[in-house]
Amino acid sequence: MPQPRLTDDQRRAALAELPQWTMAEGREALQRRFTFRNFNEAFGFMARAALTAEKMDHHPEWSNVYKTVDVVLATHDAGGLTELDLKLARAMDRIAATMGA
Amino acid sequence: MPQPRLTDDQRRAALAELPQWTMAEGREALQRRFTFRNFNEAFGFMARAALTAEKMDHHPEWSNVYKTVDVVLATHDAGGLTELDLKLARAMDRIAATMGA
Repeated sequence: MPQPRLTDDQRRAALAELPQWTMAEGREALQRRFTFRNFNEAFGFMARAALTAEKMDHHPEWSNVYKTVDVVLATHDAGGLTELDLKLARAMDRIAATMGA
Repeated sequence: MPQPRLTDDQRRAALAELPQWTMAEGREALQRRFTFRNFNEAFGFMARAALTAEKMDHHPEWSNVYKTVDVVLATHDAGGLTELDLKLARAMDRIAATMGA
Protein backbone atom coordinates (compact mmCIF):
# COMPACT_ATOMS: atom_id res chain seq x y z
CA MET A 1 0.00 0.00 0.00
CA PRO A 2 1.56 3.33 -0.97
CA GLN A 3 2.25 5.78 1.84
CA PRO A 4 0.07 8.90 1.83
CA ARG A 5 1.87 12.19 1.28
CA LEU A 6 2.05 14.36 4.42
CA THR A 7 -0.34 17.30 4.64
CA ASP A 8 1.07 20.81 5.09
CA ASP A 9 0.25 20.65 8.80
CA GLN A 10 1.91 17.28 9.19
CA ARG A 11 4.99 18.56 7.37
CA ARG A 12 5.22 21.59 9.64
CA ALA A 13 4.85 19.42 12.73
CA ALA A 14 7.54 17.07 11.44
CA LEU A 15 10.02 19.90 10.87
CA ALA A 16 9.40 21.15 14.43
CA GLU A 17 10.07 17.66 15.74
CA LEU A 18 13.24 17.24 13.63
CA PRO A 19 15.12 20.51 14.28
CA GLN A 20 18.30 19.42 12.48
CA TRP A 21 16.48 18.75 9.21
CA THR A 22 15.38 21.39 6.71
CA MET A 23 13.35 21.32 3.51
CA ALA A 24 15.55 20.77 0.44
CA GLU A 25 15.73 23.62 -2.07
CA GLY A 26 13.16 23.33 -4.84
CA ARG A 27 11.62 20.00 -3.89
CA GLU A 28 9.54 18.37 -1.21
CA ALA A 29 12.32 16.56 0.60
CA LEU A 30 14.12 16.68 3.95
CA GLN A 31 17.85 17.27 4.15
CA ARG A 32 20.51 17.14 6.84
CA ARG A 33 24.28 17.29 6.94
CA PHE A 34 25.98 14.94 9.40
CA THR A 35 29.58 15.72 10.35
CA PHE A 36 31.78 13.16 12.07
CA ARG A 37 35.40 13.08 13.23
CA ASN A 38 36.78 11.17 10.27
CA PHE A 39 35.93 8.84 7.38
CA ASN A 40 35.80 5.78 9.62
CA GLU A 41 32.98 7.30 11.66
CA ALA A 42 31.18 8.78 8.66
CA PHE A 43 31.14 5.46 6.84
CA GLY A 44 30.26 3.63 10.05
CA PHE A 45 27.18 5.84 10.27
CA MET A 46 26.35 5.09 6.63
CA ALA A 47 26.68 1.35 7.18
CA ARG A 48 24.29 1.42 10.14
CA ALA A 49 21.84 3.69 8.34
CA ALA A 50 22.02 1.46 5.23
CA LEU A 51 20.94 -1.58 7.25
CA THR A 52 18.02 0.38 8.69
CA ALA A 53 17.05 1.72 5.26
CA GLU A 54 17.17 -1.72 3.67
CA LYS A 55 15.03 -3.18 6.44
CA MET A 56 12.48 -0.40 5.89
CA ASP A 57 12.80 -0.80 2.10
CA HIS A 58 13.10 2.99 2.04
CA HIS A 59 16.43 4.42 0.95
CA PRO A 60 18.16 7.79 1.29
CA GLU A 61 19.81 9.88 -1.40
CA TRP A 62 23.15 10.64 0.15
CA SER A 63 26.67 11.74 -0.54
CA ASN A 64 29.88 11.44 1.43
CA VAL A 65 33.08 13.46 1.33
CA TYR A 66 35.55 12.30 3.99
CA LYS A 67 33.87 13.04 7.35
CA THR A 68 30.68 14.61 5.99
CA VAL A 69 27.47 12.84 4.97
CA ASP A 70 24.72 14.83 3.23
CA VAL A 71 21.33 13.14 3.27
CA VAL A 72 18.14 13.89 1.33
CA LEU A 73 14.94 12.00 2.13
CA ALA A 74 11.80 11.81 0.01
CA THR A 75 9.30 9.15 -1.05
CA HIS A 76 9.49 8.95 -4.84
CA ASP A 77 6.24 6.96 -5.23
CA ALA A 78 4.33 9.62 -3.29
CA GLY A 79 5.97 12.61 -5.01
CA GLY A 80 7.00 14.13 -1.69
CA LEU A 81 7.33 13.43 2.02
CA THR A 82 5.62 10.59 3.85
CA GLU A 83 5.82 9.02 7.30
CA LEU A 84 8.59 6.75 5.94
CA ASP A 85 10.87 9.77 5.56
CA LEU A 86 10.21 10.89 9.12
CA LYS A 87 10.88 7.39 10.39
CA LEU A 88 14.20 7.19 8.53
CA ALA A 89 15.17 10.73 9.63
CA ARG A 90 14.54 9.82 13.28
CA ALA A 91 16.50 6.59 12.92
CA MET A 92 19.46 8.43 11.36
CA ASP A 93 19.40 11.01 14.15
CA ARG A 94 19.47 8.22 16.73
CA ILE A 95 22.38 6.44 15.03
CA ALA A 96 24.37 9.68 14.70
CA ALA A 97 23.67 10.60 18.33
CA THR A 98 25.27 7.35 19.54
CA MET A 99 28.36 8.34 17.53
CA GLY A 100 28.65 11.85 18.94
CA ALA A 101 27.41 13.62 15.79
CA MET B 1 55.45 12.74 1.15
CA PRO B 2 52.82 14.41 -1.02
CA GLN B 3 51.95 12.69 -4.28
CA PRO B 4 53.04 14.56 -7.42
CA ARG B 5 50.26 15.74 -9.70
CA LEU B 6 50.04 13.77 -12.97
CA THR B 7 51.44 15.41 -16.07
CA ASP B 8 49.15 15.93 -19.08
CA ASP B 9 50.69 12.87 -20.75
CA GLN B 10 50.21 10.74 -17.66
CA ARG B 11 46.60 11.89 -17.39
CA ARG B 12 45.91 11.00 -21.01
CA ALA B 13 47.49 7.58 -20.56
CA ALA B 14 45.42 7.01 -17.42
CA LEU B 15 42.15 7.84 -19.18
CA ALA B 16 43.04 5.41 -21.97
CA GLU B 17 43.70 2.72 -19.38
CA LEU B 18 40.46 3.45 -17.46
CA PRO B 19 37.85 3.56 -20.26
CA GLN B 20 34.86 3.77 -17.91
CA TRP B 21 36.14 6.92 -16.21
CA THR B 22 35.91 10.44 -17.61
CA MET B 23 37.22 13.81 -16.51
CA ALA B 24 34.75 15.64 -14.24
CA GLU B 25 33.23 18.87 -15.57
CA GLY B 26 35.21 21.96 -14.56
CA ARG B 27 37.82 20.32 -12.38
CA GLU B 28 40.77 17.98 -12.54
CA ALA B 29 39.04 14.86 -11.23
CA LEU B 30 37.97 11.45 -12.49
CA GLN B 31 34.35 10.37 -12.40
CA ARG B 32 32.43 7.18 -12.98
CA ARG B 33 28.85 6.00 -12.43
CA PHE B 34 28.44 2.45 -11.15
CA THR B 35 25.02 0.84 -11.58
CA PHE B 36 24.06 -2.29 -9.68
CA ARG B 37 20.91 -4.43 -9.45
CA ASN B 38 19.63 -2.98 -6.20
CA PHE B 39 20.58 -1.08 -3.03
CA ASN B 40 22.03 -4.16 -1.37
CA GLU B 41 24.60 -4.53 -4.15
CA ALA B 42 25.27 -0.80 -4.45
CA PHE B 43 25.97 -0.46 -0.74
CA GLY B 44 27.95 -3.71 -0.74
CA PHE B 45 30.20 -2.13 -3.35
CA MET B 46 30.51 1.01 -1.24
CA ALA B 47 31.43 -0.99 1.86
CA ARG B 48 34.20 -2.84 0.02
CA ALA B 49 35.46 0.34 -1.63
CA ALA B 50 35.39 2.16 1.75
CA LEU B 51 37.69 -0.46 3.29
CA THR B 52 40.11 -0.09 0.39
CA ALA B 53 39.96 3.71 0.56
CA GLU B 54 40.57 3.74 4.31
CA LYS B 55 43.53 1.40 3.95
CA MET B 56 44.99 3.72 1.27
CA ASP B 57 44.09 6.78 3.37
CA HIS B 58 42.67 8.19 0.14
CA HIS B 59 38.92 8.70 0.00
CA PRO B 60 36.35 9.17 -2.76
CA GLU B 61 33.68 11.83 -3.09
CA TRP B 62 30.61 9.75 -3.80
CA SER B 63 26.85 9.72 -3.80
CA ASN B 64 24.33 6.92 -3.79
CA VAL B 65 20.71 6.82 -4.91
CA TYR B 66 19.26 3.31 -4.62
CA LYS B 67 21.23 1.16 -7.09
CA THR B 68 23.49 3.91 -8.47
CA VAL B 69 26.83 5.08 -7.06
CA ASP B 70 28.48 8.19 -8.55
CA VAL B 71 32.18 8.52 -7.73
CA VAL B 72 34.56 11.46 -8.13
CA LEU B 73 38.27 11.00 -7.43
CA ALA B 74 40.85 13.73 -6.93
CA THR B 75 43.79 14.38 -4.61
CA HIS B 76 42.96 17.58 -2.71
CA ASP B 77 46.51 18.12 -1.41
CA ALA B 78 47.86 18.02 -4.96
CA GLY B 79 45.11 20.17 -6.49
CA GLY B 80 44.32 17.53 -9.11
CA LEU B 81 44.94 13.92 -10.08
CA THR B 82 47.73 11.75 -8.74
CA GLU B 83 48.68 8.08 -8.87
CA LEU B 84 46.50 7.57 -5.75
CA ASP B 85 43.39 8.38 -7.79
CA LEU B 86 44.34 5.89 -10.48
CA LYS B 87 45.01 3.23 -7.86
CA LEU B 88 41.61 3.79 -6.22
CA ALA B 89 39.84 3.89 -9.62
CA ARG B 90 41.41 0.55 -10.58
CA ALA B 91 40.47 -0.96 -7.21
CA MET B 92 36.84 0.21 -7.57
CA ASP B 93 36.68 -1.22 -11.08
CA ARG B 94 37.94 -4.57 -9.78
CA ILE B 95 35.42 -4.63 -6.92
CA ALA B 96 32.53 -3.70 -9.23
CA ALA B 97 33.59 -6.32 -11.77
CA THR B 98 33.30 -9.09 -9.18
CA MET B 99 29.73 -7.89 -8.55
CA GLY B 100 28.67 -7.88 -12.20
CA ALA B 101 28.70 -4.09 -12.58
